[in-house]
Amino acid sequence: MSQTNKASAIRDKSDKYTEFVSRGFGRDLAKRLGLPQPAVLRRYSPNAPLVEGPILVVGQGAGADGVARVLLDWHQDVRRHATPKEKLGAIVVVLDALEHPEQLSDPMLTIGAALRDLNRNARIVSISRPALDSDAPALAAARNGVDGIIRSVAKELRAGATANGVLLANGIAADAPSAMSALRFFLSGRSAFVDGQFLTASADGAATGTDWARPLDGSVAVVTGAARGIGAAIARTLARDGATVIAVDVPAAGDHLAAVANSIRGTALQLDVTAPDAGARILEHAISRHGRLDIVVHNAGITRDKLLANMDAARWDSVIAVNIASQLRMNEAFLASSSFAGNARIISVSSTSGIAGNRGQSNYAASKAGVIGMVRSTAKLMAERGGTVNAVAPGFIETDMTAKIPFATREVARRLNSLQQGGRPGDVAEAIAYFAQPAAAGVTANVLRVCGQNLVGQ
Amino acid sequence: MSQTNKASAIRDKSDKYTEFVSRGFGRDLAKRLGLPQPAVLRRYSPNAPLVEGPILVVGQGAGADGVARVLLDWHQDVRRHATPKEKLGAIVVVLDALEHPEQLSDPMLTIGAALRDLNRNARIVSISRPALDSDAPALAAARNGVDGIIRSVAKELRAGATANGVLLANGIAADAPSAMSALRFFLSGRSAFVDGQFLTASADGAATGTDWARPLDGSVAVVTGAARGIGAAIARTLARDGATVIAVDVPAAGDHLAAVANSIRGTALQLDVTAPDAGARILEHAISRHGRLDIVVHNAGITRDKLLANMDAARWDSVIAVNIASQLRMNEAFLASSSFAGNARIISVSSTSGIAGNRGQSNYAASKAGVIGMVRSTAKLMAERGGTVNAVAPGFIETDMTAKIPFATREVARRLNSLQQGGRPGDVAEAIAYFAQPAAAGVTANVLRVCGQNLVGQ
Repeated sequence: MSQTNKASAIRDKSDKYTEFVSRGFGRDLAKRLGLPQPAVLRRYSPNAPLVEGPILVVGQGAGADGVARVLLDWHQDVRRHATPKEKLGAIVVVLDALEHPEQLSDPMLTIGAALRDLNRNARIVSISRPALDSDAPALAAARNGVDGIIRSVAKELRAGATANGVLLANGIAADAPSAMSALRFFLSGRSAFVDGQFLTASADGAATGTDWARPLDGSVAVVTGAARGIGAAIARTLARDGATVIAVDVPAAGDHLAAVANSIRGTALQLDVTAPDAGARILEHAISRHGRLDIVVHNAGITRDKLLANMDAARWDSVIAVNIASQLRMNEAFLASSSFAGNARIISVSSTSGIAGNRGQSNYAASKAGVIGMVRSTAKLMAERGGTVNAVAPGFIETDMTAKIPFATREVARRLNSLQQGGRPGDVAEAIAYFAQPAAAGVTANVLRVCGQNLVGQ
Repeated sequence: MSQTNKASAIRDKSDKYTEFVSRGFGRDLAKRLGLPQPAVLRRYSPNAPLVEGPILVVGQGAGADGVARVLLDWHQDVRRHATPKEKLGAIVVVLDALEHPEQLSDPMLTIGAALRDLNRNARIVSISRPALDSDAPALAAARNGVDGIIRSVAKELRAGATANGVLLANGIAADAPSAMSALRFFLSGRSAFVDGQFLTASADGAATGTDWARPLDGSVAVVTGAARGIGAAIARTLARDGATVIAVDVPAAGDHLAAVANSIRGTALQLDVTAPDAGARILEHAISRHGRLDIVVHNAGITRDKLLANMDAARWDSVIAVNIASQLRMNEAFLASSSFAGNARIISVSSTSGIAGNRGQSNYAASKAGVIGMVRSTAKLMAERGGTVNAVAPGFIETDMTAKIPFATREVARRLNSLQQGGRPGDVAEAIAYFAQPAAAGVTANVLRVCGQNLVGQ
């Protein structure tokens, strides 16, 4: 079937779904799951405005003032009080000085009153501090309360609007460059399919004179599994943002790989990531062809689904080998190289299956949960070198692979999230491109779900 | 409507649901969500066997040997290798010495091969170590891999079987008393509605000569909100396990409260938990009437649901006041009292809404997320006094309150989990009773979901 025919067949079936949810039990079910009509999401382009409409900054004190100043520096239309009936592009609520859960009431009711004036595809972003075991109980309760609120509000917003939060580690100011990079990501169309999630700013980051249109100018990135789907989207997105991209895939991907590399003026490297010398070969290619290596995106991955009761060693072992063991081995090579230093980045593709498990994917979930463990414990090694390491965890993303899922299963999977639709490969790529930015220097050890707040059953 | 009529009306509607999922789109949908026929879950009773059938212990080394010895001490039928065709009551996989994700293959394929021989309501329990940021990357990957596996297997098991895991903090042996108390909880019918979850043993705990039939003998417990529903179930369960129970509720609950207290030979205390002296009055009642206070269960809670856009201060503030501020204030009183010391316990009722947020419940989610923050940061204060503090997070539990939810919404909510049914108040109570046990002395700062691995959309 051609791409066009396939797409139209999918549309036809999508119509059947729309019929089903339009009456009777189906409608009740749809209501409960929150599936009326999916919105067309606002996606990033370098020339588009950061948000569509004024930004209301809720909160008092130095933190809120500082955030408002940064937004003004970004040439945004900032409000410190809601103007009746004025449509808003975003609400930023700064809660960095919260001490007791009783203090949540005022800012939340202020937001609540402004919600009806949100434009389509608006943004709610909180800036607060994570609850720590060492906090006083009331402080921890207040701080963790924000988590429950943002995840609830994300489920209430409609028309493509999202709610997410920035968490400030101890000693990090609300307007620290790292925190502001996360705020900018959440406000922008880059975060279209990110909903109900948090990013932690764990160091100040650098107040770079960032070229927001081409933040990766001058850097060299490698993307594994780049011949198709999400990997190809990552390669294209990093190139759009200014990086020189080395597209890596297995020799069997040949023509597709060359096409991706050529289309973005990058280079292609045919390589099996499970080869013992994969890391060394990537380094060698990067240094000899491009003089440096700044960004590594571990995207290559496979699925070999079976219920554990029917699992065999070949399926299990190949998934572990490709999805996690190869990343561990390559990272050892990169971390041992003096060429991979300074403001270096590792970004791994995990999965919501690695967070919540998935039926028929015990091997895949093991590998993707493994990626999360690896990323968190690699952060200290990267920090020693001035770099960061993060993971993205995609939920249901529309690709050739998901197009093969049986109709009803796919329809349900794609709707079971707060945005009522599947994401696009580009949505995963945008999150990765964000982590790669110099402005995100203080943002490390995060696992960011790109899943529309998927109902995953953790 | 009488209780009997109400129950039969619910059954009628449940039949309609069964029809819907039996054909066409509904069947496909049901398959995807994993909702064929809910199993009758095996619930705990003091005289029932711990598990129904032999227990296969998978894994090698001192850890697995130690766990097998403990199971033998508990008079269980232990296997170290699967016997072809023999039906199993449980599989315990000991992975305390895991170093690399490649080592997951052998034990998991062993489990996979044994899955077809599981009895109904069987148990899979892993015993492993949590991934730490300070771990080497391969070690962290291996350890976190277990998380993905258990949550996947939990979604694959049928017929009331569950998969859960015990996590051993640094320095804690696989067969430490605290770890074994968690293992016993997961094996038993106490954990009927707990699926895909982990309990962390953070200290060795005491090798008590536990009377497993009446583990709370001699202790005095207070339960707030005890007049009805989950609170009444908690009071009854703690009393069944040997505790003397002080049943607390608001004066308006009068007769119900007295009935619960009388039925379990406890005492009733009419009290508004938001009163500034609530903690002092509970202490005074406990000491004067029963000579001590060992166990505090913060169960009292209210909902005042509204979308944030329609929220008012009265709704917001009352939920915060009852659900979290009162607990903070009462805990201060308890922690300041020399009467609440030794092997003391605080157990708070949170909610999956506090973990994942919920549409229309931003206030409730704030309060229940607040409870989680409070519990984690209160652990160090309780540890100084030799006590523990934990939370349970119920998912969809069948109560008078949930019986009022419109039919379709309730039907979907009750099925959207790996056990395809709502839980019972007693399921929440059993988890609380476990945390209250002397054997659980090393188990603190946990937030245990009692939700059948609910699809919550975090």
